[in-house]
Amino acid sequence: MPLVELHLLQGYGAEEKRRLGEALTDAVRLVVPADPGAITIMIREMASDQYMRGRRSRSGAVALPDPREVVRGYLGAMERRDLAAAQASLAPGFAMQFPGAPEMTTLDELIDWSKPRYKFVTKTYERFDAMQSEGAAAIVYCFGTLSGEWLDGVEFSGIRFIDRFELEGGKITRQDVWNDMAEVRAKA
Amino acid sequence: MPLVELHLLQGYGAEEKRRLGEALTDAVRLVVPADPGAITIMIREMASDQYMRGRRSRSGAVALPDPREVVRGYLGAMERRDLAAAQASLAPGFAMQFPGAPEMTTLDELIDWSKPRYKFVTKTYERFDAMQSEGAAAIVYCFGTLSGEWLDGVEFSGIRFIDRFELEGGKITRQDVWNDMAEVRAKA
Amino acid sequence: MPLVELHLLQGYGAEEKRRLGEALTDAVRLVVPADPGAITIMIREMASDQYMRGRRSRSGAVALPDPREVVRGYLGAMERRDLAAAQASLAPGFAMQFPGAPEMTTLDELIDWSKPRYKFVTKTYERFDAMQSEGAAAIVYCFGTLSGEWLDGVEFSGIRFIDRFELEGGKITRQDVWNDMAEVRAKA
Amino acid sequence: MPLVELHLLQGYGAEEKRRLGEALTDAVRLVVPADPGAITIMIREMASDQYMRGRRSRSGAVALPDPREVVRGYLGAMERRDLAAAQASLAPGFAMQFPGAPEMTTLDELIDWSKPRYKFVTKTYERFDAMQSEGAAAIVYCFGTLSGEWLDGVEFSGIRFIDRFELEGGKITRQDVWNDMAEVRAKA
Amino acid sequence: MPLVELHLLQGYGAEEKRRLGEALTDAVRLVVPADPGAITIMIREMASDQYMRGRRSRSGAVALPDPREVVRGYLGAMERRDLAAAQASLAPGFAMQFPGAPEMTTLDELIDWSKPRYKFVTKTYERFDAMQSEGAAAIVYCFGTLSGEWLDGVEFSGIRFIDRFELEGGKITRQDVWNDMAEVRAKA
Amino acid sequence: MPLVELHLLQGYGAEEKRRLGEALTDAVRLVVPADPGAITIMIREMASDQYMRGRRSRSGAVALPDPREVVRGYLGAMERRDLAAAQASLAPGFAMQFPGAPEMTTLDELIDWSKPRYKFVTKTYERFDAMQSEGAAAIVYCFGTLSGEWLDGVEFSGIRFIDRFELEGGKITRQDVWNDMAEVRAKA
Repeated sequence: MPLVELHLLQGYGAEEKRRLGEALTDAVRLVVPADPGAITIMIREMASDQYMRGRRSRSGAVALPDPREVVRGYLGAMERRDLAAAQASLAPGFAMQFPGAPEMTTLDELIDWSKPRYKFVTKTYERFDAMQSEGAAAIVYCFGTLSGEWLDGVEFSGIRFIDRFELEGGKITRQDVWNDMAEVRAKA
Repeated sequence: MPLVELHLLQGYGAEEKRRLGEALTDAVRLVVPADPGAITIMIREMASDQYMRGRRSRSGAVALPDPREVVRGYLGAMERRDLAAAQASLAPGFAMQFPGAPEMTTLDELIDWSKPRYKFVTKTYERFDAMQSEGAAAIVYCFGTLSGEWLDGVEFSGIRFIDRFELEGGKITRQDVWNDMAEVRAKA
Repeated sequence: MPLVELHLLQGYGAEEKRRLGEALTDAVRLVVPADPGAITIMIREMASDQYMRGRRSRSGAVALPDPREVVRGYLGAMERRDLAAAQASLAPGFAMQFPGAPEMTTLDELIDWSKPRYKFVTKTYERFDAMQSEGAAAIVYCFGTLSGEWLDGVEFSGIRFIDRFELEGGKITRQDVWNDMAEVRAKA
Repeated sequence: MPLVELHLLQGYGAEEKRRLGEALTDAVRLVVPADPGAITIMIREMASDQYMRGRRSRSGAVALPDPREVVRGYLGAMERRDLAAAQASLAPGFAMQFPGAPEMTTLDELIDWSKPRYKFVTKTYERFDAMQSEGAAAIVYCFGTLSGEWLDGVEFSGIRFIDRFELEGGKITRQDVWNDMAEVRAKA
Repeated sequence: MPLVELHLLQGYGAEEKRRLGEALTDAVRLVVPADPGAITIMIREMASDQYMRGRRSRSGAVALPDPREVVRGYLGAMERRDLAAAQASLAPGFAMQFPGAPEMTTLDELIDWSKPRYKFVTKTYERFDAMQSEGAAAIVYCFGTLSGEWLDGVEFSGIRFIDRFELEGGKITRQDVWNDMAEVRAKA
Repeated sequence: MPLVELHLLQGYGAEEKRRLGEALTDAVRLVVPADPGAITIMIREMASDQYMRGRRSRSGAVALPDPREVVRGYLGAMERRDLAAAQASLAPGFAMQFPGAPEMTTLDELIDWSKPRYKFVTKTYERFDAMQSEGAAAIVYCFGTLSGEWLDGVEFSGIRFIDRFELEGGKITRQDVWNDMAEVRAKA
């Protein structure tokens, strides 16, 4: 106890069912502090001829990608400066907010803005957290540390950062960034 | 479709069932982009004499508090400097990480550390995000802006911040903070 | 086999559950010629805090009256010439079609039309059949025999008739009548 | 809400499941005026080794044909005077009642009876209504208009009719007919 | 896994539900060697207006007594020679088979038969096993040791015995007894 | 009513599902004296990607053999003195108790013990009863009559016996035997 039965149209793969099962387990544990071994998920699948709503049979919507994977792909593409790949993860209307920067909407703006700030930055991730908002947006948080090289060639590392992403339909609509770069520069 | 049936021992209140229903709905939407009006939650409750595991009847665990409310309570208590109330929200072993600070474990340390930095700070919250980790910890993120007064009497406002909390058993075990204070001071 | 589980919000009375159980049993038997003793109906009821669709709890719609009873009430009122009571069973936009008559929309028209045809008519019912159309309308058929008195004082009886009714929201929207009056008069 | 789960032995085709789903949806709407989009049907199928009643596994009964189709086939065969095909739709003990006729039990009787009445008749159908009675009989109503030719060569059309059929085991056991032929002839 | 859902009409008490839950758990374990903590029983109860079979609502049959308790009561009554109480546990047609005895049908016969064999016997029970046969009969086995006094005043103890009972409708229809009395007497 | 739904991971064969269905039916009838034709078993199977407990997918445990068959195999092997085959049915720690014998733990002991008692024995079985104990052990009872030949060449038959077996993990851990041999010898 508790037991969750999820009734689903056929067409979702084992990986998608695993993601559903994990998300449902976690949803229950957010409220009920049950022994994990006692939280059971059973997924019941129906062929489209076994399901009817409003007197019409239905097909299941194609699953969304794991938003963590979308974000990981985007961040990896940015790190290796593959702007085309990074752009492919973004939804129209994408906006991003970096510390001390104006809100930017294109990756080129971001590149230009960062040029006078550091030569390059690499992220080491401590953790990705993903959740669905109460609306259409999925939310991903990731945090860890930045390392890289300032413009003067001095290396830095261990600078704390956190990114927050919103995604809709599997595409990133918003990125918010906080980090300790200014804190570190101020101390330098 | 999808339909979630949650089988639960009796004893949870309407508010707790609402939280479960919302969390389960959101869990499904993290994977399946279904029309919200088509995501149905049905909660089946059993008296303890209707449930047996391992040949023994069972009672339901007492529900956890909403971790957003725990965090809100803690942050409110800190803001009005009610340290006793704030302390009551913390688990043994609590630790916190602020920008440019060493890891601290007591509220007194935090008060001492902040004294040479600002007179006071007030938080305006844009949003609270809560989720369960894959383990025992619930996670809460909140972000918004800081306003307050520097030591020199100059006021500040609109400084971006984000807090991340971990909770176990309804108590806060960890707080991580990022903000643009250094960025703003550097510009000042 | 087959077994029908009906999941329903609380608030329906025993009589309404009986009507649902009978209609579901008959629906199954329209397709599967199962032994009646093997067709099982189980009605699961949920309080409104046990049900959520689209992240909102819901209340059940008030049950419709049995359309057979609505029709019986209307026909009884007409027979005893209680036009006010009969009118109360009719929806705005009501229309009726009698043999050899133009389409009529008011009970007064019907009274006027029947005056030169017979003094009075009494219906003996053999059977009422009710069903739901594929849309919003419930449909009721009733048939049996007419008896009464022609204008010349001659009595008649045993004249076959059938009435078809459509109802929406528990009110009659349409009545179609067929009978053997002309056949009988032609023979007379 | 409401949600109907139908538990069924395997062996029914998509068309039969569609008919079951529609009949169950309509059964619910006869009592509960729910938003059609909120009435859900889920059909659970079991292999025969997943079902046992009275300690014996069972096989599902072969589905009945759609009674509307049986009636359509019969009426079409009658119209094109294919008496053998029409006869194949009739159950032993079949009886029919036409306006002004004695009860007849064979198609030959009907043909003989109609000969002095009209040369031929064609039916235009406005609608077929099908339902299961509370017993073994399925009931079909169809109505519309007759056109054809009187014995004197004069054509007619637009004459209202309604037919009522009872079927058991997919065969027609009874036909009752009402129409305005006498009404029309009386006016002619 | 496995999970057993038992759907039951209301009216059974907590003790009866406990017996059902235990019997269902054991039934599963006879085939599936699951971790006991993973075998879950959920009992769903329906009011009589929530259940219909063959278009009729039903009431649940009154529960049978625990056959172990019936047998314990009978054996206790016999031991204290309360023949009226013992008789009350027996069904019409009761028969019993003791070692070396003819089949007997009345308690008086048994008393008479035992008189020349021992003064009295007391049973010490090691265990009662109860199960349902594939038919109407419940079966109870109990075994342990006999102690008592032979006719010559010599005491005995530790003589192995086993009794097998069949019950229908909560009454004992048959008792079969095996023991080592002859073995022990032969050695004496 | 009652209806038992068994939710099971895939991988059990038709024979194993039959055994489960029978055991569940009998478990219900031990408490509820329902009309057998009204006790329904529905087995729901899930692929391993449709089931998760404690956030991990699971596989079903391999079914236990029917303990009756294990016992039948053992008794058959003993009767034809195939000690290797009989031994294969025994668990480590096996013990057996025969009338008038010390507890024995090996088949060789048993053979030695029986040699001075009879030439051979053949069992005719009236019935096998199997059940699961409340713990890990399955229990089998079988009874009937013994026939064979005493050491002096005299044949015997019709001697009542009963055997009780305990099994764990499909292997026999204990055998207890009662019979009327001494009774019969005493009379001889």
